[in-house]
Amino acid sequence: MEQTLNFRRKPYILSGYSIGGEKEGNGPLHEWFDFCLDDDTYGENTWEKAESKMLKTSITECIRRADKDTDDIGAMLSGDLLNQLMSSSFMARDLRIPFLGIYGACSTMTESLMLGAVLTDGKYSDNVVIGASSHYCTAERQFRMPLEHGNQRPPSAQWTATAAGAMLLSGESGIEETFADKEGKIHNMKKVRIESGTIGKVIDAGVKDANQMGSAMAPAAVDTLLNHLQDTGRDLKYYDAVFTGDLGYIGKKIVADLLSDSGIDKDQIERIYDDCGTMIYEPRQDVHSGGSGCGCSASVFAGYVYKKMKRGEINRALIISTGALLSTISPFQGESIPGIAHAISLETE
Amino acid sequence: MEQTLNFRRKPYILSGYSIGGEKEGNGPLHEWFDFCLDDDTYGENTWEKAESKMLKTSITECIRRADKDTDDIGAMLSGDLLNQLMSSSFMARDLRIPFLGIYGACSTMTESLMLGAVLTDGKYSDNVVIGASSHYCTAERQFRMPLEHGNQRPPSAQWTATAAGAMLLSGESGIEETFADKEGKIHNMKKVRIESGTIGKVIDAGVKDANQMGSAMAPAAVDTLLNHLQDTGRDLKYYDAVFTGDLGYIGKKIVADLLSDSGIDKDQIERIYDDCGTMIYEPRQDVHSGGSGCGCSASVFAGYVYKKMKRGEINRALIISTGALLSTISPFQGESIPGIAHAISLETE
Repeated sequence: MEQTLNFRRKPYILSGYSIGGEKEGNGPLHEWFDFCLDDDTYGENTWEKAESKMLKTSITECIRRADKDTDDIGAMLSGDLLNQLMSSSFMARDLRIPFLGIYGACSTMTESLMLGAVLTDGKYSDNVVIGASSHYCTAERQFRMPLEHGNQRPPSAQWTATAAGAMLLSGESGIEETFADKEGKIHNMKKVRIESGTIGKVIDAGVKDANQMGSAMAPAAVDTLLNHLQDTGRDLKYYDAVFTGDLGYIGKKIVADLLSDSGIDKDQIERIYDDCGTMIYEPRQDVHSGGSGCGCSASVFAGYVYKKMKRGEINRALIISTGALLSTISPFQGESIPGIAHAISLETE
Repeated sequence: MEQTLNFRRKPYILSGYSIGGEKEGNGPLHEWFDFCLDDDTYGENTWEKAESKMLKTSITECIRRADKDTDDIGAMLSGDLLNQLMSSSFMARDLRIPFLGIYGACSTMTESLMLGAVLTDGKYSDNVVIGASSHYCTAERQFRMPLEHGNQRPPSAQWTATAAGAMLLSGESGIEETFADKEGKIHNMKKVRIESGTIGKVIDAGVKDANQMGSAMAPAAVDTLLNHLQDTGRDLKYYDAVFTGDLGYIGKKIVADLLSDSGIDKDQIERIYDDCGTMIYEPRQDVHSGGSGCGCSASVFAGYVYKKMKRGEINRALIISTGALLSTISPFQGESIPGIAHAISLETE
């Protein structure tokens, strides 16, 4: 059975909004975020409330940018890494938009995009807003150690991004927008549409080390990508760019090796493929194997990729958020780390 | 904006499967479950693995009953109460069906039905399997106290059902089935179709006591129900039966009072409305305010309601799973308990 859904009406992404934390704001994607915190508490008295506020700001700003009101939104789909989706649930309480909670660990952004696209493409809702978030301080204390403990991180560990991203999907194409290039020349912005999506299967490569997330998720990313190419009859070079979510340096290398083993040309992989976890920080920022967390791909897709597409610098992109489905107790019960990845094909018009 | 989605092709529920634990098997719905455990470990060495196995059995048996194979299933949507959906994620790893994790606390069954119906109704997937589970022992130790502690439960507390339920949704109507009535007369079974669904908003009534889940969720159930009636232009008596998920005795009474306050006739409410949390146990079973957990409504809907409909004893049902979106840490941060409820309208043909 094919895993790929074709969106016949190709829903539009009317707007996007991305937030980075302090560290993310000091990284290489600074200019692509819509807003960066200069204090990761965001004025709240707990990290969890700060993360929830980041998600809420992303979603409300996204709705505002699309010139919509919360009453215009038929459904909101979002998720995060916190137990019982604390960031999303409390954000949804404040916004009072019909809400569907999604959990795909760090694959949440493309899982939400997939289901949001189905709702708009199938004309079930005219406007759907989706989002995802993560916060270094909430994730560390939930999955690893109390922050105060200051434990040493192995070189394979990744840094959970303090970030959030949201997109508004619609059957309408929205208003015409323009932008000025470096020479001040005015251009029309492209419109970004969701063309298809591939739902991932859970793949477990047997990795048991919670500091080796990239290795645990890479086989799922490759499985989804190859299934996407097979279902659509496409070659990797159909895309101008392919991005995975948060595999980091180690996982990205594994993906490149596995794709090369499957017969795809190495230079092509090198030219087309990148990973948000390797893009969001610079090595000087001491994040070891790169970024991770739902917010990593959410902010890079809603910030960098979406904006590059609107400017026509990327016209066909395949975005693949990647999730490690371990729980806070499964490792103690001897379980390995299952991975999952969902792919969304975007195109400009 | 309307919260109700109309399913134009009205997807069929080709099959259902429900499992109860030992206590549930000793309760009043015994005969309606497809299978009851006589040992809640289900042969596994942890409660979490037992719960995951219950969900896996429900889903595989559901697929088998519909005369399908895992390869025929385009998507599987499921969720549970465990942190990071441990039961669902590990079940999905074993089944290798394209997987979308859903979190709506105890509202998960109708949330999965909603999104599964959208996928089949919109012709994105021909066959979609959905499910949800809970287990008393996994939920108690995650949300409340270690089981060994044996703490006393207040009268308002509910008992998390050890139960799972699954349904297979399809665009096809499936094979004709028959059943024998008490006199041995053979009848054709009805087919059960999904007619519409109402996505709930998060409603917080300000309840802060984690032993008052019914009170916390009841306002969300009423909000979704009244919005459903308004969107569809229906009166409560359009339905033969309306079921909420797991409000228990206290929550059920609050719903009846709030509906009566909204102008609906008390006798009509009494005649039509029931709550799975009050149906799954008998008072003699010492469960205080009734049952709760994702598995409560999942098993009652996939067992009792679905089978009653197939026999033509109920022809129009509105099922409303209800969720309390508190997290394991939000109460410690002074937060009240947000509630949510999603409604699904079922009809026979």
